[in-house]
Amino acid sequence: MNPNTMNPLDPEEFRKNGHMVIDFLADYYQSIQNFPVRSQVKPGFLLETLPDSFPLHPEPLETIMNDVQTDIIPGITHWQSPNFFAYFASSGSTASFLGEMLTNGFNVVGFNWESSPAATELEMVVMEWLLKLLQLPPCFSFANGGGGVLHGTTCEAFICTMHAAREKILDQIGRQNASKLVVYCSDQTHFSFQKSAKILGINPNNIREVPTSKSSNFQLLPQSLEDMIKEDIEAGFVPMYLCATVGTTSTTTVDPLGPLCEVANAYNMWVHVDAAYAGSACICPEFRHFLNGVEGASSFSFNAHKWLLTNLACCCLWVKDRLALTSSLSTNSVLLRNKATESGEVVDYKDWQITLSRRFQSLKLWMVLRTHGATGLREMIRKHVKLAKEFQRLVAMDARFEILVPRYFSVVCFRVSPSVINDDEGDANEFNKKLLQSVNATGRVYMTQTIVGGIFVIRFAVGATLTEEKHVLKAWKLVCDHATSMLCKLN
Amino acid sequence: MNPNTMNPLDPEEFRKNGHMVIDFLADYYQSIQNFPVRSQVKPGFLLETLPDSFPLHPEPLETIMNDVQTDIIPGITHWQSPNFFAYFASSGSTASFLGEMLTNGFNVVGFNWESSPAATELEMVVMEWLLKLLQLPPCFSFANGGGGVLHGTTCEAFICTMHAAREKILDQIGRQNASKLVVYCSDQTHFSFQKSAKILGINPNNIREVPTSKSSNFQLLPQSLEDMIKEDIEAGFVPMYLCATVGTTSTTTVDPLGPLCEVANAYNMWVHVDAAYAGSACICPEFRHFLNGVEGASSFSFNAHKWLLTNLACCCLWVKDRLALTSSLSTNSVLLRNKATESGEVVDYKDWQITLSRRFQSLKLWMVLRTHGATGLREMIRKHVKLAKEFQRLVAMDARFEILVPRYFSVVCFRVSPSVINDDEGDANEFNKKLLQSVNATGRVYMTQTIVGGIFVIRFAVGATLTEEKHVLKAWKLVCDHATSMLCKLN
Repeated sequence: MNPNTMNPLDPEEFRKNGHMVIDFLADYYQSIQNFPVRSQVKPGFLLETLPDSFPLHPEPLETIMNDVQTDIIPGITHWQSPNFFAYFASSGSTASFLGEMLTNGFNVVGFNWESSPAATELEMVVMEWLLKLLQLPPCFSFANGGGGVLHGTTCEAFICTMHAAREKILDQIGRQNASKLVVYCSDQTHFSFQKSAKILGINPNNIREVPTSKSSNFQLLPQSLEDMIKEDIEAGFVPMYLCATVGTTSTTTVDPLGPLCEVANAYNMWVHVDAAYAGSACICPEFRHFLNGVEGASSFSFNAHKWLLTNLACCCLWVKDRLALTSSLSTNSVLLRNKATESGEVVDYKDWQITLSRRFQSLKLWMVLRTHGATGLREMIRKHVKLAKEFQRLVAMDARFEILVPRYFSVVCFRVSPSVINDDEGDANEFNKKLLQSVNATGRVYMTQTIVGGIFVIRFAVGATLTEEKHVLKAWKLVCDHATSMLCKLN
Repeated sequence: MNPNTMNPLDPEEFRKNGHMVIDFLADYYQSIQNFPVRSQVKPGFLLETLPDSFPLHPEPLETIMNDVQTDIIPGITHWQSPNFFAYFASSGSTASFLGEMLTNGFNVVGFNWESSPAATELEMVVMEWLLKLLQLPPCFSFANGGGGVLHGTTCEAFICTMHAAREKILDQIGRQNASKLVVYCSDQTHFSFQKSAKILGINPNNIREVPTSKSSNFQLLPQSLEDMIKEDIEAGFVPMYLCATVGTTSTTTVDPLGPLCEVANAYNMWVHVDAAYAGSACICPEFRHFLNGVEGASSFSFNAHKWLLTNLACCCLWVKDRLALTSSLSTNSVLLRNKATESGEVVDYKDWQITLSRRFQSLKLWMVLRTHGATGLREMIRKHVKLAKEFQRLVAMDARFEILVPRYFSVVCFRVSPSVINDDEGDANEFNKKLLQSVNATGRVYMTQTIVGGIFVIRFAVGATLTEEKHVLKAWKLVCDHATSMLCKLN
């Protein structure tokens, strides 16, 4: 290939090579169960294999794809494997993949309406569809001064809404009081919350972590929150922002939104509801009650890339007061000046997020919603919940095991009970940790852990798109076999 | 399709539908010149067309793709069109597209090494390759305490490095002095810098914009910077962070890195070099001198999605002191605990960025580097620069026009001279604004504007992958024809 005559976007080359990679990936999905779920490589495996310096000359796609197969795939943890039960799943789908293809194919930079009107308006449409699908209150709709936007991850939603909350309150109390602002979460809130607050320059001493306990299923209790707020006000601090969670990362517990918003609103605070994982489930009427009270919140987000068949990354954020968001995040540059913006008739999403540039993100969500429809998406959620229930049933039937917290959605938190390990909590923690390591080392499944109330817990998280009943049954058998063998050695 | 039996990631469905969308996009590139470059739709065009509520039932791909053709494409501004000369281009390529396909196909969440070792190690490899390709000083290499990471956009690089700088300095002077911290840029620095500083909670009054002038080609002058720093220190402020730019957004001017770093380093400041656009050009030896002095900086970033054939988004960031970055951004959660992290042998990229979740971003850069090699990429840069030079030559030959600032790379800043419009600067601005509107309204090209030193300037930015000489010639002819016709009406 002579670089002088090469066209890096030649349509026929694109067609040929595109087909080749589609076949490669279709074959990958066909054979995905043959790979260890969690990569079994050692640190440095790729650093030691690949050349130290960049390629000087062009190489053919065939060579590169061979290297993907040989060098890259062994180092991949197969999140799309049906035997992936770790963290929260990243639920990919063909529809979302096709949407991403269009996003990358058009490759527009949709920072404002003018730069690609369809990118803005399709996002608005999709966010209004999702608002209805989740039965979010109309105060979050564009029609009522609110509106929705696609971010990458929850961290961005935290940063943007917290910044909006800060600017709003500093307008009232003066910037010289910035160091008095306090933000609240629970000890179960995702750690991205604290990271976001620190990035925003909130004094780490002003980040309050309300303790939770097993007796109340690790929920953030309104009374504990109010006690802390009162103490802070007495000490001269200014309460600013509360994060409540629907489906915590650790145990998927649900904070009581209504009462929490009531407390926070009495103190003029911004409340953000983080439903990163469990928000998707709330498209099913039987789960919607977990969002009751969300009308009292200032903003709400969930990650479609976790459990709504959408590829990473896709965090859906709604705010009640879009002006609070845009007035704190807007920028005005002569480089971007245009009639549409000046007319005030359009949304410029650059003012709804951290960055300027933005991809045509909504295409994948739109493809997912149309390809599966509400009925298809609800079936998927219900199937995963049913599989988790099945796993829970199996755990409950085996007297050696125990379930640590209620299963709300598709995550089961369990462990081998201390009663079969000399009744010592410390030993039980050590045993369960080793059990998890032993199970994961087989490469046949991948689960991860959490620690709540000092207890080491194995999390079995259903959510990978390809997971069927047989995979859940096999995973349970594997856990049982390893536990049996380890318990034998113990006695 | 019965949703009960549907598999949203069925390999054969994936194959069939993937091929369909590949053909759709190949056809799109074939016919891209038939569409108006800048979308000509009116606000609300799509909001009024699409249904108000989400689809209840699954729809076939054929229906959806028809709607893409009918409803979406008219609303797209075709950034991949060879006639796109606006902003900075978003230079897509087949290689990068294929890399994105793999990223989305594997759909891993590579927050730390363990979650997908290849995602971390390939990124490290690619960043070391690029470091060598750009001849960045070895102090930015992993081998010497530095290292590279892929962010989405420059804004994220600003936020992370500014946060690192702040934490570092507050460790020395105490957090109670946070309100004294001052950050510096020029009046030509991208507005994302100020937005980032505000998000970080830097008092807007503590963001210094050093004025530049036409006489020094809008460069940030070291003396002006030092004067401001001295004044600030006298007033009790603490200088913290400087942003210097290689290739400003407005006129692509280049700040003198060496002398600026010397000033900033004397005051113990963090210097970030933003080479978002022009960084890519520095892979050519003849442009590398623009980075001279970068060894004095603390961090450096450029956007491969602007001019290195990489699809949006892809910001490459290096830091000299990776501990400063990771110690300010790291988080520790029991949910993510793993042996590899505890061994200290691996990089966990979640601690190098704002968000937790991250895509397997390096695949597209790796595909681009291997598919084109250094030779191919340099040819591409040189071709674009040559085309810009050709445009500049044409402008210079026409006495009615003038070039406002030197052309350093592939952007030409020009206007119709006031001398042919009654010598009035205000009228000239108005005339050129109308000329640009008139040219863009044809849909045959798309250019944008800037205002520097009060002067309205048309920016002709070469960088779209498909642009050839004929497109540049046609664009110039269009500008000439419209100018002629408008000047006729004037006289």
